[in-house]
Amino acid sequence: MSNNNVLWWERDGLGYDGDGRLLVAGRDVATLARASGGIPLYLYDGARVEGNIARLRNALSNAQLRHRLFYAMKSNRFMPLLSMMKSRGLCGIDACSPREVVRARQCGFEGSEISFTATSLSNDDLRAITCHQGLIINCDSLSSIRRLAALGYCGRIGIRINPGTGIGYSDNDRLRYAGAEKPTKFGIYLEEFPAALELAKEIGLEVNGLHFHAGCGFLTPQLDQLERVFTRVQAFLALVPNVEYIDIGGGLGIPLVESDAPLDLELWAATVARHFGNTEAEIWVEPGDYIGKDAGVLVLQVNTVEQKSGHTFVGVNGGFNIHIEPAFYDLPLEIVPVRLGPNQKSVLASSSGTRVTVAGNINEALDIFAEDLPLPTIREGDLLALLNSGGYGSSMSSNHCMRGEYLEQLII
Amino acid sequence: MSNNNVLWWERDGLGYDGDGRLLVAGRDVATLARASGGIPLYLYDGARVEGNIARLRNALSNAQLRHRLFYAMKSNRFMPLLSMMKSRGLCGIDACSPREVVRARQCGFEGSEISFTATSLSNDDLRAITCHQGLIINCDSLSSIRRLAALGYCGRIGIRINPGTGIGYSDNDRLRYAGAEKPTKFGIYLEEFPAALELAKEIGLEVNGLHFHAGCGFLTPQLDQLERVFTRVQAFLALVPNVEYIDIGGGLGIPLVESDAPLDLELWAATVARHFGNTEAEIWVEPGDYIGKDAGVLVLQVNTVEQKSGHTFVGVNGGFNIHIEPAFYDLPLEIVPVRLGPNQKSVLASSSGTRVTVAGNINEALDIFAEDLPLPTIREGDLLALLNSGGYGSSMSSNHCMRGEYLEQLII
Repeated sequence: MSNNNVLWWERDGLGYDGDGRLLVAGRDVATLARASGGIPLYLYDGARVEGNIARLRNALSNAQLRHRLFYAMKSNRFMPLLSMMKSRGLCGIDACSPREVVRARQCGFEGSEISFTATSLSNDDLRAITCHQGLIINCDSLSSIRRLAALGYCGRIGIRINPGTGIGYSDNDRLRYAGAEKPTKFGIYLEEFPAALELAKEIGLEVNGLHFHAGCGFLTPQLDQLERVFTRVQAFLALVPNVEYIDIGGGLGIPLVESDAPLDLELWAATVARHFGNTEAEIWVEPGDYIGKDAGVLVLQVNTVEQKSGHTFVGVNGGFNIHIEPAFYDLPLEIVPVRLGPNQKSVLASSSGTRVTVAGNINEALDIFAEDLPLPTIREGDLLALLNSGGYGSSMSSNHCMRGEYLEQLII
Repeated sequence: MSNNNVLWWERDGLGYDGDGRLLVAGRDVATLARASGGIPLYLYDGARVEGNIARLRNALSNAQLRHRLFYAMKSNRFMPLLSMMKSRGLCGIDACSPREVVRARQCGFEGSEISFTATSLSNDDLRAITCHQGLIINCDSLSSIRRLAALGYCGRIGIRINPGTGIGYSDNDRLRYAGAEKPTKFGIYLEEFPAALELAKEIGLEVNGLHFHAGCGFLTPQLDQLERVFTRVQAFLALVPNVEYIDIGGGLGIPLVESDAPLDLELWAATVARHFGNTEAEIWVEPGDYIGKDAGVLVLQVNTVEQKSGHTFVGVNGGFNIHIEPAFYDLPLEIVPVRLGPNQKSVLASSSGTRVTVAGNINEALDIFAEDLPLPTIREGDLLALLNSGGYGSSMSSNHCMRGEYLEQLII
């Protein structure tokens, strides 16, 4: 095999050039990393973000769905990214805390471009959000409806409902948003929904939207589960047939490993249309990972290559605290060299390289990015790129062990 | 039953007074929390920290062990806590990153009072630590030994070894530090140890210490596993019989639930003495949780009490991002009201209260502090105290969803 193989994750804007240099958005990753001075570097491809959003919009339009998109900023709140979204008019913002609302405002979004859906809201939280004129507020409890009104808020609200079933990464308990087995904390269940509507009416709040979130990371095989969720929503909708919007949340997944096929967006949109296309309501979607995850890579430098008891350990200059998905959510992560030598692409393509453990620099046992990962020969000083790191990477980072430093850069 | 019951976790410095007020170090928790203005508050009891250290030292002294204690600051790096340890001369510091060393220095510790043991060290890391005169450096790879010398470091080093077996919270894969099943990233295994010694000799570094870490959270029932680790260490010790110190790491656990009995420190120290008491080496210990965990509580305010599909959800003003142990490490957490009404102590003591789910304010499914927790009647506005929160709470916190705000206060 030659270096002409195309790897499963390569695409426009991400891949190796003929000299084995990894390029993101046409830029040489090694050069960008060197300029960051040995500090872990998140790189985001603005064009990919824009492309992901366009693809989503196309699918919704093709299914004749009037829609709005709100980017779930909790997945990545890097300000240049938000600013780009605003200045190019790509989408609105889904915010889940008062400070997220403030940050979106700092990046230029108006209150009316921000959909706010949070949980366990304090009175201070509620007071803070009522300061933003036009903010779209979805309440997820009777308590928050009652307390919002008590603070003098009047006008319209959406209600976050819990359809009582959900989808998600298969068998991943940590990512279960709604389930039949036991109630989750999110949203108002059908049995309490009439009381919520009654309460809103009593205190003079108009319910003009329904919001729900079914799960995360779903691909085409999970669309039948999504359909089950949509079916459950009908019972709620029957009680508020004239809502102006139905916010179906986010959760659209991307391929994380070679065997994952991309989500069939046309099929997804058709599913949405089949259930909600006959209403007057606009369809609102709040994707996070789908917009930004595959637009980001995290670049780390190898500082240690060492045999330990017959295993090859590759130590890098960052830990699970700056990118927690592999350690805490057990999500797989594609890790590739930033430079390939002659013929190393075929080694990568055929998974015939040495199997290594990629270990972070935190003194904690779970601080492992990958095990049994076949890589071409890696030397101390080499750079590695962790793909699909644009969502829930930097946004969840901590300063554990005071190893929290990283840089971020948006390529536009 | 009356309010005279003693709850399993009550002790000198932590418990309810006759009026049902929770006191930490003699101070009314509700009053302190009110002064924090509705922001999640970590409270640390300095006297408890001092008592925990004294108890450890006593046990080691009673076993005739010459010893030094180094507090694992990664468990809690709140500066007033470190300052107190320094000013009262309680212990040295175990640091695991260059910035931790700097912080310890900021709090007054000399290089010679700091034991540095890290993993996946970059050349920048190595350069940074060589700036601290007298710093005690334990190398955990041949690579770091080689690169340390290449930077011009000369003098003494300890070697972190991997005994090939470990202990820890039973069946908790996330907290496994050393194991027979597959190699972990930490330390040098016996099969590479002679090469490490040879390398150090070649480049003129004197090996004057052995370091290992066996696991975490161990209590008396796990001491036989600790003993197995100690036995394995003998083979390393035989190759460096004249080391000045044997650093047995930390990992000493505390009771997290009522059925846990406290670690029998005398038995622990006797086990250490049986294996290492006959050497000339000083015994060094690096506890983190044992020193600080039960000295800390996290105080959160209830903002939502609501029935959802037949379950009672209690929403609080903080999320798993400011205290991740329950969500990510599956460690149990005792949660109690900050105020008890008449006869509520007996409800607490008998676990006869309403079973509730305590849910954080992060839009993520796993953001649950406790499920099926029997509590006396809880109302919106009440305060809850999360016990045993003094270790790996604030130190691992993130700003996920921009909900990362909290305050910390040391009571001395």
